[in-house]
Amino acid sequence: MQYEISERMAAMQPSMIREILKATSNPEVIAFSAGNPAPNAFPIGDIAQITADILQEQPVDALQYGVTEGYPLLLEAVRNLCKTRYDISISENEGLMIISGAQQGADLVTKTLINPGDTVLCEDPSFIGCLNCFRSYRAKLVGIEMEEDGVNLEKLEAEMKKPHVKLFYMIPNFQNPSGITTSLEKRKAVLALAQKYNVMILEDNPYGDLRFHGETIPSIKSMDTEGAVIYMGSFSKIIAPGLRVGYVIAPKEILAKMVVGKQCADVHTTMLSQMICYRFLATRDLDSHLSRLQGIYRGKCELMISTMEKEFASGVAHTNPEGGLFLWCTLPEGADMTSFCQKAVERGVAVVPGIAFLADPETPCRSFRMNFSTPADEAIVEGVKRLGLLTKEFLR
Amino acid sequence: MQYEISERMAAMQPSMIREILKATSNPEVIAFSAGNPAPNAFPIGDIAQITADILQEQPVDALQYGVTEGYPLLLEAVRNLCKTRYDISISENEGLMIISGAQQGADLVTKTLINPGDTVLCEDPSFIGCLNCFRSYRAKLVGIEMEEDGVNLEKLEAEMKKPHVKLFYMIPNFQNPSGITTSLEKRKAVLALAQKYNVMILEDNPYGDLRFHGETIPSIKSMDTEGAVIYMGSFSKIIAPGLRVGYVIAPKEILAKMVVGKQCADVHTTMLSQMICYRFLATRDLDSHLSRLQGIYRGKCELMISTMEKEFASGVAHTNPEGGLFLWCTLPEGADMTSFCQKAVERGVAVVPGIAFLADPETPCRSFRMNFSTPADEAIVEGVKRLGLLTKEFLR
Repeated sequence: MQYEISERMAAMQPSMIREILKATSNPEVIAFSAGNPAPNAFPIGDIAQITADILQEQPVDALQYGVTEGYPLLLEAVRNLCKTRYDISISENEGLMIISGAQQGADLVTKTLINPGDTVLCEDPSFIGCLNCFRSYRAKLVGIEMEEDGVNLEKLEAEMKKPHVKLFYMIPNFQNPSGITTSLEKRKAVLALAQKYNVMILEDNPYGDLRFHGETIPSIKSMDTEGAVIYMGSFSKIIAPGLRVGYVIAPKEILAKMVVGKQCADVHTTMLSQMICYRFLATRDLDSHLSRLQGIYRGKCELMISTMEKEFASGVAHTNPEGGLFLWCTLPEGADMTSFCQKAVERGVAVVPGIAFLADPETPCRSFRMNFSTPADEAIVEGVKRLGLLTKEFLR
Repeated sequence: MQYEISERMAAMQPSMIREILKATSNPEVIAFSAGNPAPNAFPIGDIAQITADILQEQPVDALQYGVTEGYPLLLEAVRNLCKTRYDISISENEGLMIISGAQQGADLVTKTLINPGDTVLCEDPSFIGCLNCFRSYRAKLVGIEMEEDGVNLEKLEAEMKKPHVKLFYMIPNFQNPSGITTSLEKRKAVLALAQKYNVMILEDNPYGDLRFHGETIPSIKSMDTEGAVIYMGSFSKIIAPGLRVGYVIAPKEILAKMVVGKQCADVHTTMLSQMICYRFLATRDLDSHLSRLQGIYRGKCELMISTMEKEFASGVAHTNPEGGLFLWCTLPEGADMTSFCQKAVERGVAVVPGIAFLADPETPCRSFRMNFSTPADEAIVEGVKRLGLLTKEFLR
């Protein structure tokens, strides 16, 4: 048999990060390359108790097929969560669907809106999982340079003006990979541009509840009165990613097609996972749970940054995220970042080369991504020390 | 904002069945329209115990991100299951991946192999979820007429000869919707044709373990020495569909692209679900569990058929499935099936019009699908009586 791969998938490569993750199964390697929640962030006792209750009280509901749109009680709870916690009211012209992690939202949005050759704009750098998703539908990806407070607006407008631009993908809070938060002014400006040029915004907000410094900034969706924003939320970072539960809010006519897409993709999201999320929201104190998570990540981020400032060679810049899981380091001009990341692995520390996150991986890049949520505190200190020694040798 | 739906999704409609299912949430309606396992088929006590053990012994594994290919212990267990139970040895040139139900396998195979305009051949009628999946990637669907022992081979060969035919989708055991089982001779012939014309077979086998009459027939995959068959199995019908766990075996170069596709689609399948399936396979007596299921479905199928033979007007034909969940009824020549199905709902019985399962829904069709696995025994008798009365009035 001769196999011919479709045009859309022929050039696709595995995510560099997921490949690096596999390489770091060696327990000697300190992995700053993951994007996992801290293991002690999971509400294990609550989930065990809730799951036992579900399988005692509603076993057939948890094990039988469900409707594609999602478990009705979870839909209601999310609707309520959006309204009370995030100030997002789902209008009459919009709908809500439970998805198998926010990644599936990106997949279904792209399938529903993007023809081969259409342009998807994204922050540059941005989350590789979604970039690859856009690529897998043969979108043309155009990255918009990130500044300290979000994308460069002139460049965004220049690109939005062009024909066949369908979507602008952004992560406004503690962006993956950069840790950057888009300012309120820029959120408003981005929304105005999207409306002006009829380009949908895909707002991905997996980390919004993990703010550990500064004040909450309203989501773009909460300011959207024209149906210009598709919004994706996730329980991966606030309950547990292994459950694979997220949600998406979209204009009804778009959501209707996404529902059909989900019927074809996985029929519905795991019922037990949906019911666990529902009962967690309905019966546990989300505020105090999130405070605990914020405390964990605040501590880890501060430990990583303070150790970096002690150990790294001067000239290595880093972002100062106000939340989330990641920070972004940039080597001084002239340094070969890829070679640095390679040497880091040889010293037993894995970081992700910045080029993995670029719309065009040929763009010159001196940055790499550091994750502070996954490693234990001792590993953060030891890993940053090893990297620090390397920076001093490497930049000599 | 003006929304423009992509070309691939613009014409897509929700699955008629899933829409009918929503309509039948009225508890007065007896639903022969579902495809759900019997609620008493679920090994509830085992799953509750296993889940408690997992969340006690390996909570972080169950809640954290996992690798895209699947939970390693489940992969090993499935490999073993395939070898010992199904006589399928996964060769060095092939790989195995855990998926979020077999539906996702169809999605990833299509995404990986089908360009817009390519032809996918299918049994006619066939499973609507996969037909819609093929359509959603703009495949040209060509249905091959079903006979009592599987597709018409002359028609299959005539279509396989044509250019741009990439895939032949089939459900060899107790097919959905017809209940037909493809004979050993036809399985061999189909495999030979696939190899001759370099057309991949997508063998979907969700019901194979639910045989309640006759002898097991080897899967096509078990006879495949040339890598002509992509095989999909599922735990939906033998453990529980709400868990969303299946698996796919494919040639390595195809599977590698499917893994990338899955990274973009849902990252990985729910960990807790995968671990439940693993522990069920590893610690429970699958033989005796399956015997129990076969007994349940044998009883329900026999009850439905014996009641039909008593209550239906003569002239209504039906298949005699040797397993699975469905049978297929055909009204006599000249009868208006759509009107019959409409009237049935008015009498409080939901069945699925046969056209829902056709590659070309414009093809004349006098058949409808009956599901015997979901309704309770009393509902089977009462529903068939109502339908029987209708057949007598309708065919007068």
